[in-house]
Order: sequence, then structure tokens, then C-alpha cells
Amino acid sequence: MSHFGYVLGLADDALIAAQRLGEWCSRAPEMEEDIALANIALDQLGVARMLLTYAGELEGRGRTEDDLAYLRAEHEFRNVRLVELDNGDFAVTMAKLLFLSVYQRLLYDRSIGVGDERVAAVAAKARKESAYHVDHSARWVVRLGDGTEESHRRMQAAIDLVWPYTHQLFQVDPDVHALGVAGVVVDPSTLRPAWLATVDAVLAEATLTRPADVAAPAGGRGAHTEALAKLLAEMQVLHRAHPGARW
Amino acid sequence: MSHFGYVLGLADDALIAAQRLGEWCSRAPEMEEDIALANIALDQLGVARMLLTYAGELEGRGRTEDDLAYLRAEHEFRNVRLVELDNGDFAVTMAKLLFLSVYQRLLYDRSIGVGDERVAAVAAKARKESAYHVDHSARWVVRLGDGTEESHRRMQAAIDLVWPYTHQLFQVDPDVHALGVAGVVVDPSTLRPAWLATVDAVLAEATLTRPADVAAPAGGRGAHTEALAKLLAEMQVLHRAHPGARW
Repeated sequence: MSHFGYVLGLADDALIAAQRLGEWCSRAPEMEEDIALANIALDQLGVARMLLTYAGELEGRGRTEDDLAYLRAEHEFRNVRLVELDNGDFAVTMAKLLFLSVYQRLLYDRSIGVGDERVAAVAAKARKESAYHVDHSARWVVRLGDGTEESHRRMQAAIDLVWPYTHQLFQVDPDVHALGVAGVVVDPSTLRPAWLATVDAVLAEATLTRPADVAAPAGGRGAHTEALAKLLAEMQVLHRAHPGARW
Repeated sequence: MSHFGYVLGLADDALIAAQRLGEWCSRAPEMEEDIALANIALDQLGVARMLLTYAGELEGRGRTEDDLAYLRAEHEFRNVRLVELDNGDFAVTMAKLLFLSVYQRLLYDRSIGVGDERVAAVAAKARKESAYHVDHSARWVVRLGDGTEESHRRMQAAIDLVWPYTHQLFQVDPDVHALGVAGVVVDPSTLRPAWLATVDAVLAEATLTRPADVAAPAGGRGAHTEALAKLLAEMQVLHRAHPGARW
């Protein structure tokens, strides 16, 4: 994976997560949660914009953030499958957000001193937002896991459903490993022990059981589930209908 | 209309506008606009929450913001029909936002000194946000109105479509008039000249024509279009399925 591909991956994780979180808009069960999820979606969208712009510059073919968001085909998206999974119920959404945001917070925290100053600058801005995302999702996972029998059952089912997709976050890529060793960017494959420590603590407090590790679904960041096609169709329809213009 | 009904009307205007703006989430033609519309929706939702909470206190029957947002029937909503109209194309959305936000800005500006200190406090917070909403929508109306032949045609059609619904913003209500004379709240029926002055200036810059004034669609703030039922069905489904609980 090239340096461009790495930045695009970070961007797409945030972009696709934002779209999924945005789907909760006006559908959350409380007004307060409606606002919280919309704010988290906006944080992710903000990070996505900055990273897409930077990715376009790294690529050097003149593509803007809008070109990259709206004019790529499904197989060109570099997000992990974790973020594209359907929202499911509220527990699934919170499981996805916990796993993603713990990963993002570690990645952003450690990216602040890296050689890629553009990534470092985005990370410096994003880490505080990310800490809030972790806090928000962890509270819900604990509240539901350590709640009623029904909420516990659903929260555990959500953790079990999403868990296999977390492995992809830490997949080893030789090029990214080399960039990591050179101190240019953070190699995500090094983050799993710290990620597990945080996630384990939340699961324990929530009286939930960490699922057994299984093989990650096959394929790298170019491989996607069927859910992505539908998400992109919705996200891209207006822009594609009127490329480069409002009408 | 009672004091409670007045506050509920302000709240519902913001709440329903927020829902409609939220529908643009991930569907706007540019990433920047996606974020702008989501932010405006969040501003409206924030105002709606504060006012719904206050309305519940005025009513004195123990209803919370969530009760008022999620457990009222269609005929109990007090929003003007302007905000519940379908989004239509981008021009219709911007016409609606311009007309609403110029009204809200005037209302909030003048509410800062009123006797109802709770409304005054919300207004003090909301007026800056509201000024941004005016600025954002006015820019788009000018950009589209004074743009291409096609964008001009569509923007004028949007203004023509929405215009009749603006009259309801200024409908005279005897009780609210009395509250206004007593200095408790601002009587919206007094705002039309100032509203017209701002709107006229935007339309002129946009090379658009102000439509002739027609009779407002019949009925007060309890009367609604068919569009509201569908909006509420979506907004309320999760909460109603699980009243008072997450599951």
C-alpha cells in the first residue's frame, strides 16, 4: 500500500463511518443521542475532508476531496469493512463505534510526532474528538451490557457480530510497515495490544465476553461487503447526476 | 394561543426544520455543503431541545423534551407548514432556509430583552447561529439566482413554490399579540416589514422576482400538510417502539 493508499484508507474509514452515523439522524431514540451521533458523524466527516484533500495532493493527479468522495467506484474505496457494515440496532452501532474510535484514538495519538506533518496536523485536531467518541461509545456499551437481561443479550450479540471485522484494522502491509519503521506514519498493525487493553477494560466493566479471535474476512482494504455499494449509491447520486455543477 | 403554545411553536419550527435539513446528510452535492447543512440542522435541533424542555415546564404536566418530540400526534405539532414541506431540490431547500432563518434571526434578536427570561436566554444563544443560517442560505440564493439560466429558473421556481407558506410566519394571534404588548415575548406578526426588507435585498441581488402576495394556506399552527405525517413516522418510530427504554 502506497503512502497515498495509507492516507486514503484513513480518510475512507472516517468518511464511511460518517455516512453510517449520519443515517441515525432523526432516528435515534432520544433527542440527546440524535445530537451526539450527528456531532460524531460531523467529526468524522471533518477528518475525512482534510485527509481526502491531502490524499489528492499525494496522488498528484489533481483530484479534489469531492472527486475522491463522489467519483470513485466501490473497489477504489480503501475503508475497512467494519465501518461499512449496516448500522443494525443501536448496540451494533455502538460496538462499531467503540472498536473504530479506540483504534482511531491510538492512531491519532501516535501520529502527532510522525514525519508526515500533514497527517500529524490532522491527528492533532482529531485526537480530542476521538477521545469523546471513545467515551461516548464506551458509556453505552457499559450501560447496555451491564443493563437489563435483554440489553445485555443484544449488546453481546452486537460484539460477537462485529468482532471478526476488527482484525482488518491491524492487518500487516509491507509498505506501511516500512513507512512506520521510517517514522513517516504510524503502522496500524502495531496498535493491537494497546487497542485490546482498552477494549478489554470496557467489555469487563460491561460484563461482556470478548469473542474468540477468528480469521479476519479475506481481502485487504479494497475488498468490500455488499453494504458499501448501497451506501455509495446514496452518497454519490446527486454529485454524479450533476458532475462539477449544481444542476 | 397560550404562552405554552407559543414556545411550542418556536420549538417545533426548529425541530421540524432540523429533521428536513438532516435528510440532506450524505446527499448534498459537495462535502462542504454536507457539513454545512448538518451543522445548521444541529443548531436547529439544539434550539428545539431547549425550547421543548421549557415548553414542558410551562405546561406543567411533566412532559420532557423526548415526550414532546416523540409522543405527540401530528395535529399536536405547532410548526408552520413552511418547515415541513418536502426538501425538493437544493433550491427549494435554500428558499425554505432563507425565509425561515431571516424570520428566526429577527425573532431571536428582538427576544433578547423580553420578559420571558427563558426565551430570552435561548434567543441570546441562537441569534449568532441564526445569522450564519441567513448568510449561508442568502449566498446560495444569490449564487443560484444570479448563476446560469437553468439555476436562475430553478431558484425562481423554488421562491414561487415556497412564498405562499411564508405568510403563516406572521399570522396574527390575539393571545400572542397580548403577550407581545405586555413585553413577555415577541409577537411574530410585527416582524414582516423587517423580514421583507432583508428578503427583498437578497432577491434583488439574486436577480429574482418577489412573488405576489397571495392568501396564506388556510389554518393555524395546528394545520399541516401530508408531508408532516411521513416525517413524524420516521422521527418517532424507534422511540415509540420502545417507550421509555432503549429496547
